[in-house]
Amino acid sequence: MRIIILIGDGMGDRPLKALGGKTPLEEASTPNMDEVAKHGICGIMDPIAPGVRPGSAPSHLAILGYDPYKYYTGRGPFEAAGMGIRMEPTDVAFRCNFATINEEMFIVDRRAGRDTEGLDKLAAPLNGLRFNSAPRIQVEFKNATAHRAVLILRGQGLSSNVSDTDPEKINVPPLESRPLDDAPASALTAQIVNEFVQASNDILNTHEVNRNRVAAGRMPANYILVRGAGHPPKMHTLMEMYGFNSSACIAEVSLVKGVAFYAGMEIIDVPGSTAGLDSDIRAIGREALEALPNNELVLVNVKGSDVAGHDGNIEGKIEIIERIDEMVGDIWEEVNKEETYVVLTADHSTPIEVKDHSGDPVPLAIAGPMVRVDEVTSFNERSVAKGGLGRIRGVDLMPILIDLVGIAKKFGA
Amino acid sequence: MRIIILIGDGMGDRPLKALGGKTPLEEASTPNMDEVAKHGICGIMDPIAPGVRPGSAPSHLAILGYDPYKYYTGRGPFEAAGMGIRMEPTDVAFRCNFATINEEMFIVDRRAGRDTEGLDKLAAPLNGLRFNSAPRIQVEFKNATAHRAVLILRGQGLSSNVSDTDPEKINVPPLESRPLDDAPASALTAQIVNEFVQASNDILNTHEVNRNRVAAGRMPANYILVRGAGHPPKMHTLMEMYGFNSSACIAEVSLVKGVAFYAGMEIIDVPGSTAGLDSDIRAIGREALEALPNNELVLVNVKGSDVAGHDGNIEGKIEIIERIDEMVGDIWEEVNKEETYVVLTADHSTPIEVKDHSGDPVPLAIAGPMVRVDEVTSFNERSVAKGGLGRIRGVDLMPILIDLVGIAKKFGA
Repeated sequence: MRIIILIGDGMGDRPLKALGGKTPLEEASTPNMDEVAKHGICGIMDPIAPGVRPGSAPSHLAILGYDPYKYYTGRGPFEAAGMGIRMEPTDVAFRCNFATINEEMFIVDRRAGRDTEGLDKLAAPLNGLRFNSAPRIQVEFKNATAHRAVLILRGQGLSSNVSDTDPEKINVPPLESRPLDDAPASALTAQIVNEFVQASNDILNTHEVNRNRVAAGRMPANYILVRGAGHPPKMHTLMEMYGFNSSACIAEVSLVKGVAFYAGMEIIDVPGSTAGLDSDIRAIGREALEALPNNELVLVNVKGSDVAGHDGNIEGKIEIIERIDEMVGDIWEEVNKEETYVVLTADHSTPIEVKDHSGDPVPLAIAGPMVRVDEVTSFNERSVAKGGLGRIRGVDLMPILIDLVGIAKKFGA
Repeated sequence: MRIIILIGDGMGDRPLKALGGKTPLEEASTPNMDEVAKHGICGIMDPIAPGVRPGSAPSHLAILGYDPYKYYTGRGPFEAAGMGIRMEPTDVAFRCNFATINEEMFIVDRRAGRDTEGLDKLAAPLNGLRFNSAPRIQVEFKNATAHRAVLILRGQGLSSNVSDTDPEKINVPPLESRPLDDAPASALTAQIVNEFVQASNDILNTHEVNRNRVAAGRMPANYILVRGAGHPPKMHTLMEMYGFNSSACIAEVSLVKGVAFYAGMEIIDVPGSTAGLDSDIRAIGREALEALPNNELVLVNVKGSDVAGHDGNIEGKIEIIERIDEMVGDIWEEVNKEETYVVLTADHSTPIEVKDHSGDPVPLAIAGPMVRVDEVTSFNERSVAKGGLGRIRGVDLMPILIDLVGIAKKFGA
């Protein structure tokens, strides 16, 4: 028995006037998702709890059976793990942005104009910086996709209980990192962050890449915004929790890959997967099908539906949903239905009108050999609410699946 | 106002190919259960939580309003209480099997061929054994239904944190009991268990009953397998929790009777009740009706549906469901509908294809004077999922009922 979980990131939505009161998922042509719903049991799922707006990492933690309030230690360590950076329990990781700051030290653009040219060259001299105030603390800095980067402080005596420097708005100065408790480790960590930010600003301002960007009338990537401090979570793997021999994850963003890493899943990269609207989604489906014989659980996350939601791009969201539907069709056609549970869902809603994650429940369908098939025949936010699963939470999903595949332990006699 | 809860043990199931995709409950003719559903409010219930596979004792604890994670202390103390054995808080009880072991000390049959002849005579000399290593610890041993027995260690300085000797498979040697923590009480308890097992093996091997069994070519009941160590739970009674003056339980197995005992219920035995497919289920219903005027809560558990599920016996499961339906009809016809809430449910699913308990939710119907009757007109796993109760948990049931009968306390002002 095998499980494949297909997640349209941020795929849930709310009714749109522009669509005559339909959601993008209701408007899109999704014959394959509907087919899965028709052969499955459906319901709605609160990734965390009703009304809670989930980040993708807490939501994926919950969907894999981990209490997100216990294991979500901050964005930094999940981004870092997703980028392949291994951390010690005492290390602290931060999610960073390359940003643009003017001479008055006001933030002009939090993403340096989304101009990624030369960011790898800009990152290089920041990696390995040392500070006299804490000579034993090692600094690792690595650029990630687009304007993103990760900062890791390594060593003893560090704390994740420090504030962000990113004010999350423009035309204001960046913040200083402050300790959020009285522990000496928090004071030390905030100090190192501030020293890193200052030193990096000096290096970036004079770097050749930025001199060339300014000369060409483009924004310099001259400042590092720091947020999401966290130690790596101490998580049992899916193998330890459920007895899976092996499991795999295909995801387009490092945040989700990081969750999968801590869960002990193999992380499969797919050529042509871009995390954008131009991603080769069917290639993702083909890789998932290839991984399935060797893994009892395969989790797939397609990012584009979330990107379209954040951008308020109705047509883009409909189009990417229809392309996810093609992937679902490829998978549904190929899997051995006698021994595979196919799960369709989203990690949260990213409604077009909100342009950010909302706390609405997401649609859920589970098709497979022994489910109590219900009367739902289409897969969308409203149709599935009449299904046989009723309303569950993200953390309920894995126990339900583990029970269906027959490896759940009995509680008592 | 009164409540009668009718539980078909393990009655829930999954769709079966042999039944054209129906469950046994869907296939069975259940006009009386359907009538209760028609006059009631319906829903699905996770006895413990979604996907969690419940034992009968944890599930009945939850259905009576007790947190099973807090009060399920192990199988032993519930079996013992159900057999009428009273325990002190310091005592430790174990559930035992009479088993057959060969000369190489390999287990041949974990139930001594299900041959119950003479087991009472074999149990007698094991009761009251004393050990030099712990002269103040009293040993009580009592045979129960079929191949089952209970071992109780009485005295100070005992621990329930010891491992089972039952490997739960055959053609292997039994295990030694081991302490599961560093407490001296755990080491002592494990040692006494091992000494008891050794001493009983010596006694049973040479006992006349077994010499006769062997001479007749039958399996000797020459070994005691021990598991499920537990102290008795410290539970408030239903009277203390809800203010019932009196409540009663009719159950066919000691495990469920034990839950009822700790909940402070009167336990009523019914002649002709066998816990098997041949049980006189209508007699159970008659006793329940007789108990109702004297009790505000009567809980009835019929075991046969679970037995048929464990055996993968489709026809047997359908037949026993139809016989439970007759009992429901007798009760529904007789009760004063102006002052009685009739509750139909199961303690868990025991699907034919799983042959063991599963984590699927169970159907639930509550009929009575003040419920918000919904549109559900038949009682089965799928029809009730569209009902007005939605999806609840086992521990939610008793608060709902207590509120309906008007004895719930208000929370705050």
